[in-house]
Amino acid sequence: MTVSPRIPTPLARITLIGAGPGDPDLITRRGLARLRMAKVVLYDALVHPDLLEEVPAGIPKIYVGKRAGKHSFTQERINTLLVESARQFGHAVRLKGGDPFIFGRGWEEKEYAERRGLPVEVVPGLSSSTALPALGGVPLTHRGASRGFWVLTARGSNGELPADLERAAHSDSTVVILMGLGRLGRILEFFRGAGKADLPVMIIQNGSMPGEKHWRGTVADIEESFQRERGDGPGIIILGETVGLEPQRTRARAEALLLR
Amino acid sequence: MTVSPRIPTPLARITLIGAGPGDPDLITRRGLARLRMAKVVLYDALVHPDLLEEVPAGIPKIYVGKRAGKHSFTQERINTLLVESARQFGHAVRLKGGDPFIFGRGWEEKEYAERRGLPVEVVPGLSSSTALPALGGVPLTHRGASRGFWVLTARGSNGELPADLERAAHSDSTVVILMGLGRLGRILEFFRGAGKADLPVMIIQNGSMPGEKHWRGTVADIEESFQRERGDGPGIIILGETVGLEPQRTRARAEALLLR
Repeated sequence: MTVSPRIPTPLARITLIGAGPGDPDLITRRGLARLRMAKVVLYDALVHPDLLEEVPAGIPKIYVGKRAGKHSFTQERINTLLVESARQFGHAVRLKGGDPFIFGRGWEEKEYAERRGLPVEVVPGLSSSTALPALGGVPLTHRGASRGFWVLTARGSNGELPADLERAAHSDSTVVILMGLGRLGRILEFFRGAGKADLPVMIIQNGSMPGEKHWRGTVADIEESFQRERGDGPGIIILGETVGLEPQRTRARAEALLLR
Repeated sequence: MTVSPRIPTPLARITLIGAGPGDPDLITRRGLARLRMAKVVLYDALVHPDLLEEVPAGIPKIYVGKRAGKHSFTQERINTLLVESARQFGHAVRLKGGDPFIFGRGWEEKEYAERRGLPVEVVPGLSSSTALPALGGVPLTHRGASRGFWVLTARGSNGELPADLERAAHSDSTVVILMGLGRLGRILEFFRGAGKADLPVMIIQNGSMPGEKHWRGTVADIEESFQRERGDGPGIIILGETVGLEPQRTRARAEALLLR
């Protein structure tokens, strides 16, 4: 009988990393450090290719995006692949756009893996819901304009618009809607119904990525220009008085120049 | 007549950087890069000292926190000091806890400086409102539990609780309240009034900083243990079904063990 050589078992563990809204410089220092220590990486469609360059050579990088028609992975398939990858290679990094726990189904992946005995660390990332307004010059809160913000999707559990969308139209907070471009007209209707036809609105498509586009307007008038000029890709809708701060300032400056 | 030697004018500009919720590893790669290129830094009470170690030697670091009794700076004083510092030294970094545009008064600083002709870049940071729940194992959204989240303060414009707090108690979204520990009882009353005595609640004090403490409970029972054990320092309150996911899972696991 020969004794087989001792093969060190790789330490199976998982790190869920939020890559941020798109721009590879907006990942956190911790996220980057963990990514560089990965033994295998599973990544999404919204992850910037430059981030994958940070992964050491020879480390498998597996695309599990749900967008591409050919390589459509179900969430269940991602869960099992993540656990299998960690068991096979050791430290598995799951790199997700935005923040893993904000519309990212990260908790499902964490729970699935932990139930199977794998330790999971979560490294939060910048959600597009907060980072894209900031990059676009719009504060989510501002004294005298908004003391809170509400982030929603336009997809309810039954395919209808969620009841919170109508509540949001009546709130004093800045409202940020993800995955809502396809239902823009119905969303704006809620706000018109709340007597807010003049409320400032901003739409950012492909924020912090190639093909980024911005629209500014009001509940009453933004849809026309958006539908005329829209491209492909995900986008966010920001509704609130804080969206109007920048145009107000630009107008004030222009008037000051005219009066000189 | 002697010609005075040419003194290069420092290029006055400002970068507003969000340092994240406390842990110095949670700053973004861009925030760190800009910080290392600072010619002067103005920083807050909530900024971790290790981040200031990243600033090159000899660069002035000015504390403008509003918490310390002795060195209390008004926002107006911060605005003027920021512009003066940039004009004197060149690239001025304003390093703020969390995200500059979420309860950070960053837009006021940006506007003040831009009106005086200084270019301002904003580098978004992880807001404690989204990062601390993730670090504490709580997803802000989760299929079947919450399709949105609402971030609020407990301070209305007139010193009263904001009307949105009562609206939030009736929403289906996860609610995150900043600067609310001193008004916890009245906040919980809103949720009891909305028939949500059993809604799971989590309180995180000094999140991702020394002295971090967590409490879990429900609208009905969390206040007693919190008031008994609370320390000093800022905290956030998270209310929603997603807060209950982790304890549910722990209970399910314990029951599974008992049944073996």
